[in-house]
Amino acid sequence: MKHCELCQQQGDVITESADWRVVLVNDAHYPGFCRVIWNHHVKEMTDLSATQRNTLMGVVWQVEAAIRSVMQPHKINVASLGNVVPHLHWHVIPRYADDMHFPNPIWGQVERSITPALQHRLALVETLKAAIQEQLSRK
Amino acid sequence: MKHCELCQQQGDVITESADWRVVLVNDAHYPGFCRVIWNHHVKEMTDLSATQRNTLMGVVWQVEAAIRSVMQPHKINVASLGNVVPHLHWHVIPRYADDMHFPNPIWGQVERSITPALQHRLALVETLKAAIQEQLSRK
Repeated sequence: MKHCELCQQQGDVITESADWRVVLVNDAHYPGFCRVIWNHHVKEMTDLSATQRNTLMGVVWQVEAAIRSVMQPHKINVASLGNVVPHLHWHVIPRYADDMHFPNPIWGQVERSITPALQHRLALVETLKAAIQEQLSRK
Repeated sequence: MKHCELCQQQGDVITESADWRVVLVNDAHYPGFCRVIWNHHVKEMTDLSATQRNTLMGVVWQVEAAIRSVMQPHKINVASLGNVVPHLHWHVIPRYADDMHFPNPIWGQVERSITPALQHRLALVETLKAAIQEQLSRK
């Protein structure tokens, strides 16, 4: 689609197939934040077939597993919103008790300023990318 | 778990099985907002088995389908956060261009005051409950 950001821009792709791609979200406050994007312009999960849904969610869970293993977050947040860009994509976000918004969603109220642990987490991102590539090539 | 809100309180149950329940969230600004809760105290989706994940997500998609059919929202938002209550649950939220936060997530900045359409949407909730019960008894 001509005016859809996710149709026009690939993003920082970690790994991909014909139907989906995993992108690193370069958010300074959330190292390890990944997005799993369905490559085709589809609005809702229930617009996919059951097989397509299973494929897409299978990728989301592999990404979640890699984030947990490498980034060791306190919690994982998973969300598919798409109010601004109605093209199916999943946010997979490692959350920490000392992150900027915790315990609020990352779209909610800011609770604190930058934590010193951010540098440590940022240093794990290359390892995370390799882990996601390895996880998803196993299928 | 003794101190877990979702272990202690059932909520306004629309339909349920041994493993999950669908609850109506009585949010005055979001009629039709449902929560799909895994009954057992588990923190992350990747703590479930693949079969359990498929079961839970299957319920989420049935609820999404019923909400789309009855409530006719502009967009569906689906999210599993659990920062405050780390017990697996999914928010399934019908969103409208004139709702309080659109296009922001419902946890984000307020954009406008109450829309007159809320009354109409509220009137659909009983139909939605029946639709969810019917969808999920088909399985």
